[in-house]
Amino acid sequence: MLDRAYREFEKRQQDRGISLKGIKEKLKMLKIETPSWGYSDQGTRFRTFKQPGAARSVEERLQDAAKVHEVTGLCPSVAIHIPWDKVDDYSQLSNRAASLGITIGAVNPNLFQDDDYMLGSVCNPDSRVRSKAVAHLIECVDVARAVKSRDISLWFADGTNYPGQADLRRRKGYMEEALAEMYRSMDPNMRMLIEYKFFEPAFYHTDLADWGMAYQLAQKLGPQAEVLVDTGHHAQGTNVEHIVAYLLDERRLGGFHFNARKYADDDLIVGSVNPYELYLIFHQILSAERDQAHPLVQDNARNIAYMIDQSHNIEPKIPAMIRSVLNVQYQYAKALLVNWNLLEEAQERGDVLAAEAVVREAFEQDPTPLLHAVREEMGIAPNPMKAYSESGYAEKLLQSR
Amino acid sequence: MLDRAYREFEKRQQDRGISLKGIKEKLKMLKIETPSWGYSDQGTRFRTFKQPGAARSVEERLQDAAKVHEVTGLCPSVAIHIPWDKVDDYSQLSNRAASLGITIGAVNPNLFQDDDYMLGSVCNPDSRVRSKAVAHLIECVDVARAVKSRDISLWFADGTNYPGQADLRRRKGYMEEALAEMYRSMDPNMRMLIEYKFFEPAFYHTDLADWGMAYQLAQKLGPQAEVLVDTGHHAQGTNVEHIVAYLLDERRLGGFHFNARKYADDDLIVGSVNPYELYLIFHQILSAERDQAHPLVQDNARNIAYMIDQSHNIEPKIPAMIRSVLNVQYQYAKALLVNWNLLEEAQERGDVLAAEAVVREAFEQDPTPLLHAVREEMGIAPNPMKAYSESGYAEKLLQSR
Amino acid sequence: MLDRAYREFEKRQQDRGISLKGIKEKLKMLKIETPSWGYSDQGTRFRTFKQPGAARSVEERLQDAAKVHEVTGLCPSVAIHIPWDKVDDYSQLSNRAASLGITIGAVNPNLFQDDDYMLGSVCNPDSRVRSKAVAHLIECVDVARAVKSRDISLWFADGTNYPGQADLRRRKGYMEEALAEMYRSMDPNMRMLIEYKFFEPAFYHTDLADWGMAYQLAQKLGPQAEVLVDTGHHAQGTNVEHIVAYLLDERRLGGFHFNARKYADDDLIVGSVNPYELYLIFHQILSAERDQAHPLVQDNARNIAYMIDQSHNIEPKIPAMIRSVLNVQYQYAKALLVNWNLLEEAQERGDVLAAEAVVREAFEQDPTPLLHAVREEMGIAPNPMKAYSESGYAEKLLQSR
Amino acid sequence: MLDRAYREFEKRQQDRGISLKGIKEKLKMLKIETPSWGYSDQGTRFRTFKQPGAARSVEERLQDAAKVHEVTGLCPSVAIHIPWDKVDDYSQLSNRAASLGITIGAVNPNLFQDDDYMLGSVCNPDSRVRSKAVAHLIECVDVARAVKSRDISLWFADGTNYPGQADLRRRKGYMEEALAEMYRSMDPNMRMLIEYKFFEPAFYHTDLADWGMAYQLAQKLGPQAEVLVDTGHHAQGTNVEHIVAYLLDERRLGGFHFNARKYADDDLIVGSVNPYELYLIFHQILSAERDQAHPLVQDNARNIAYMIDQSHNIEPKIPAMIRSVLNVQYQYAKALLVNWNLLEEAQERGDVLAAEAVVREAFEQDPTPLLHAVREEMGIAPNPMKAYSESGYAEKLLQSR
Repeated sequence: MLDRAYREFEKRQQDRGISLKGIKEKLKMLKIETPSWGYSDQGTRFRTFKQPGAARSVEERLQDAAKVHEVTGLCPSVAIHIPWDKVDDYSQLSNRAASLGITIGAVNPNLFQDDDYMLGSVCNPDSRVRSKAVAHLIECVDVARAVKSRDISLWFADGTNYPGQADLRRRKGYMEEALAEMYRSMDPNMRMLIEYKFFEPAFYHTDLADWGMAYQLAQKLGPQAEVLVDTGHHAQGTNVEHIVAYLLDERRLGGFHFNARKYADDDLIVGSVNPYELYLIFHQILSAERDQAHPLVQDNARNIAYMIDQSHNIEPKIPAMIRSVLNVQYQYAKALLVNWNLLEEAQERGDVLAAEAVVREAFEQDPTPLLHAVREEMGIAPNPMKAYSESGYAEKLLQSR
Repeated sequence: MLDRAYREFEKRQQDRGISLKGIKEKLKMLKIETPSWGYSDQGTRFRTFKQPGAARSVEERLQDAAKVHEVTGLCPSVAIHIPWDKVDDYSQLSNRAASLGITIGAVNPNLFQDDDYMLGSVCNPDSRVRSKAVAHLIECVDVARAVKSRDISLWFADGTNYPGQADLRRRKGYMEEALAEMYRSMDPNMRMLIEYKFFEPAFYHTDLADWGMAYQLAQKLGPQAEVLVDTGHHAQGTNVEHIVAYLLDERRLGGFHFNARKYADDDLIVGSVNPYELYLIFHQILSAERDQAHPLVQDNARNIAYMIDQSHNIEPKIPAMIRSVLNVQYQYAKALLVNWNLLEEAQERGDVLAAEAVVREAFEQDPTPLLHAVREEMGIAPNPMKAYSESGYAEKLLQSR
Repeated sequence: MLDRAYREFEKRQQDRGISLKGIKEKLKMLKIETPSWGYSDQGTRFRTFKQPGAARSVEERLQDAAKVHEVTGLCPSVAIHIPWDKVDDYSQLSNRAASLGITIGAVNPNLFQDDDYMLGSVCNPDSRVRSKAVAHLIECVDVARAVKSRDISLWFADGTNYPGQADLRRRKGYMEEALAEMYRSMDPNMRMLIEYKFFEPAFYHTDLADWGMAYQLAQKLGPQAEVLVDTGHHAQGTNVEHIVAYLLDERRLGGFHFNARKYADDDLIVGSVNPYELYLIFHQILSAERDQAHPLVQDNARNIAYMIDQSHNIEPKIPAMIRSVLNVQYQYAKALLVNWNLLEEAQERGDVLAAEAVVREAFEQDPTPLLHAVREEMGIAPNPMKAYSESGYAEKLLQSR
Repeated sequence: MLDRAYREFEKRQQDRGISLKGIKEKLKMLKIETPSWGYSDQGTRFRTFKQPGAARSVEERLQDAAKVHEVTGLCPSVAIHIPWDKVDDYSQLSNRAASLGITIGAVNPNLFQDDDYMLGSVCNPDSRVRSKAVAHLIECVDVARAVKSRDISLWFADGTNYPGQADLRRRKGYMEEALAEMYRSMDPNMRMLIEYKFFEPAFYHTDLADWGMAYQLAQKLGPQAEVLVDTGHHAQGTNVEHIVAYLLDERRLGGFHFNARKYADDDLIVGSVNPYELYLIFHQILSAERDQAHPLVQDNARNIAYMIDQSHNIEPKIPAMIRSVLNVQYQYAKALLVNWNLLEEAQERGDVLAAEAVVREAFEQDPTPLLHAVREEMGIAPNPMKAYSESGYAEKLLQSR
């Protein structure tokens, strides 16, 4: 039955002027990193509910990440969080990951879970605390070196809660100094990914509040610094795909932390609130990939780190993670179905409705048969969620954890 | 020097057509309830920082609340949270409060800190959990009876995180059933205050999402049910004072949870973000108090429970609470300085700029001399924050806790 | 080729447990009213661009509306705006519509385009203006009687721009009085649809600012008053489908003004910004239709007036309207593909991911083959946009207007 | 009586550690430009109400601007809008302004009120339209030269309404090209002020959507390009004073368009919605002025162009403008009353509540006696609004216009 559905899908795409061949290749190359912390219990300020079977150690988190990769074929690496995933011997950690069929991905410092950081980490008014924070950043560069990771992902909880609490420009200077020091400690092949956030946990100002601040900082630091877009870290109404296009055009888009939000930084399963937005983000990336007049933009578009960063407060962790990466793959697949010639013609002649229709109609396709075919060719079960369910892994966890 | 400043202030107000006599009386009658939980450590989902000297038990919370009342003269009652403030003998708790010079105020059930409530409390799909939640509500009515409280304050974390997760209308029915059962258990002198919230900790839908849902529920339940407005529980841009005016006009405004926000439910010190909004809320309340054509509206305006509900993540608890109640008193004092005759004349002739000016100009007054005078007449130190500072209480806590 | 695609689609739905038979019948019964004003030039405060061929008279607007119905089969009625569509003889207007194959739908008063209404219409401080406004409302009831319309759709621009500008509760009283007077003038078969709006053109407060205010007003007026939901009239983040579910549960959902928004009341083509939201609205309506335990809720769900209300600032009017109604039909078709049994089972056992998946997966279907089949059975061209394009109507307008 | 009030105020400030001498000098140097278009009728998309006496020509607009300066002493220049204020002989215009006691300030191109600009001006897909737009920009440089203005203020309505409508990065390139061409045509003493806007009139994306895009563009263009902050052009919740501090730190803050908003770009009277925000903006500017370690930052802080840009839809124009500039002066006066030593000490020791208190307490002062004294020393009536009222100017306009 798959075959018939695939052939029907292929026929339909041919009628739309789309050949599936290159599209399949691109789908096979899609990689989405999952976060080790996504396999442990997380919560809101009101409660962290205990989920039976949730991972309790770095070893268990690696196992779960490997399982997600096994059933999806999409997640060959796992991001780690220091000190949550701190170990004595990082090469051993690296080897353990390899033995499970995955690698260690981005290294994430933690600069918010220590009483010293109540008024900030790298922007703290106290120079002792700032030094401690910078030392931790450099420790993470060392970890990255040890686990052979290219990317260090930086998110800062730094900010203030009240007008007057701090000198905003002085804190800006502290931030620049700290990251410059960390930058100098990096190897030439490493990348610093700088995340920004509109608010929370600081509620008056956040030291890196928007893409402009992260971008400008990256500019000052040098070519190894890039911007990390967390899809939930914007003001209501923000056109995220516009920011993505902008950063690509300036060759500074380092990666994504994918998740979904309706209100604030809800950290829900990516694609579950406004799937069209996720699709439109990929639309901008694919548009940049095609831009032969700007090879550096193309390069950037091909070297984006896709990462999940969510908080599964009420869902079982592993299925929630599978759901997340499948949602990303699904919207990416749709974005590959745009008829670019039709689009560009409509855009050039200023035909608003025709241009909008080209983009929307690719979104309206259901690429399920295509994804089934790609998975088969990759040796993956066509329905990863079902495969996980039937694998007995969840039951095993309930007994063993 | 106070005297000269007061006389100058009095003169200026006379020139504006304002007599201070009645205003002083109203200021002496202002009462603001503080929450027991505001004296213990609170935090965000990222971290609860430990504050040295923070209260660790119900006894310590009562002591701190009494201290705040002692220096401000504004806070004769303290709200409690069950089970955080659960004790074996509530009449003993009541007596202990009395011995400290305060009373127990609103009773607040807790229906979010139990693994059973992961998918909701009174709206949970599991009838066992719903029954447990209702039993807790009725337990809180019993507590209110035991501590001789009039008000039970209801906030529900109930909601869902994903489209489809639950049947929204079915949950609405569960909510109505649960509150009807609780309502029947109340004594005739008791009030149920129903709080609503736009989002958090649920991120797709909240079962009581806005004032309209809380109001409609109160309407169905009967005259002892009223709406509680938390100033931080609205969408961005919402005109909160309009809602206040609306509820007063319908005689259903039960009380406030005061705090400030810039983004989401930030739970900052009330009056610290947009002090004009707090002032305009009191402006609506005072407008209702003056409405002799609607005595029931006047009654409502005079029987509002003012309560603080904040989360002092980075500030020392007791000074933050003193700051909060002083901010409320300060804006209330300004709101008393409106020249109503001028305002009504301008409104009636449609003079937009003149009417706006009357309201803004009262906000632009600095009533500090008036507040000093009122405090002196009440036998309170003119500067409560300084009085607290000099009392040595904070130092004592650092040693004893 | 259609046939093969349809058979494949039917097969896929059968595998999902969905039978298309009843679904087709429902699709054939879907009716979406278009607004006469949508065929004329509209704009922003910065500019109304002139579109060649746009309708300039009520006659031309009727012709365009009829054309949209001809190619879509979805739009048998057209809403009118008084005085924009004022004529001397309304029975003649009604007949003219009939001769074009359509009927006159909802009557919309205009209470904002007259210098008298600068400070409000029914809430104006000047009683002369209030009387004028009420007289216009009653005139519109007469128009509705003359054109045999059931619905009078009320949107008020009333509000204020500054704190203090007006007495909010007094204006509330004026609104209630005015609508009570209009209500009394209505025939027993008529319905008053009360629209609310968060802001614009008033920027401090809007007299009917949210669903709660419109709902409460309808409650006071009587059973012939219902709430009209304009999908663009909410604060950022508002869960519109929750409001829809709430109003259905209370049997007060009168109708919709469909459009899309990303920021404020953008009045874009419905379904063009977040198509999932439109789908989820229909999901709530269909859920209510199935609720056999509540026949009155079912009744309400089956009697909703679906109307377009958009502002096509840069698009050609008629194709934009065709696009709009097709988008509504498309999302409605998807909403019909939910497997309700699976959904209810998952909801009852609290399986968050499974329940979410059922709702999302229906959204992920592409019902194009189904819609082609339905159109064929209705005698409509499978691709209405193409049919319009090929009809030569647009070219004819360019010559004749 | 003024004297006594002033002495009391002076005494109070001395007790707070504030000397008024330098403050008075700074207040005398404050200059706020008013916009010529603010004296003519403006409106919303629903209606532009006709105000009796509103200016109808550039001559009348100059007269009104001069009147505002006469009674406030704050507004020695008036911004012009081309082509609204287009004249044959600009040196004559300049002379006419001089004869009225004012000068011509910033020149504002208009690139949105021509049918050619429906899909954009400098970003239009059609090269002919782009060229026309650039030509207009250069025309405005010529006008600035002719009227001896330093600043050309650029606001673009450019953007799109639908996903896919245009290639976002291509439009970014067009914008950069156009401004580079204009930049080359500027004299060395001229400044290009680049404004950004979150949305409206475009509702999917705006080509210069936020400060980051405007800033980055200015960076690329050169030292004569700076960013213009319109206080109403941000997403809900945006910390505008943080952006101000950031731009000052980077020496790229060119000026302000002052107005107030509660929802979108409401264009209300500045300071009427959240006066604390306006105060906090000046707090950042004054903080930068004091930063002796960064003389270039100080330079920037001293060379900001303060301009009003509002839309007085329901208020009489001239009094609304007087109100606006007085509100700016009032909040600026408060911002001068901060005790910087206390603030810096509290910030350095991380005393959140003490630092917040310093900033809030200056806001709580009522500087009316100070402003009266300053006006007397400047030879201005102490109450400009009253002076205008009593001048008979409004009555004269009613007769003559």
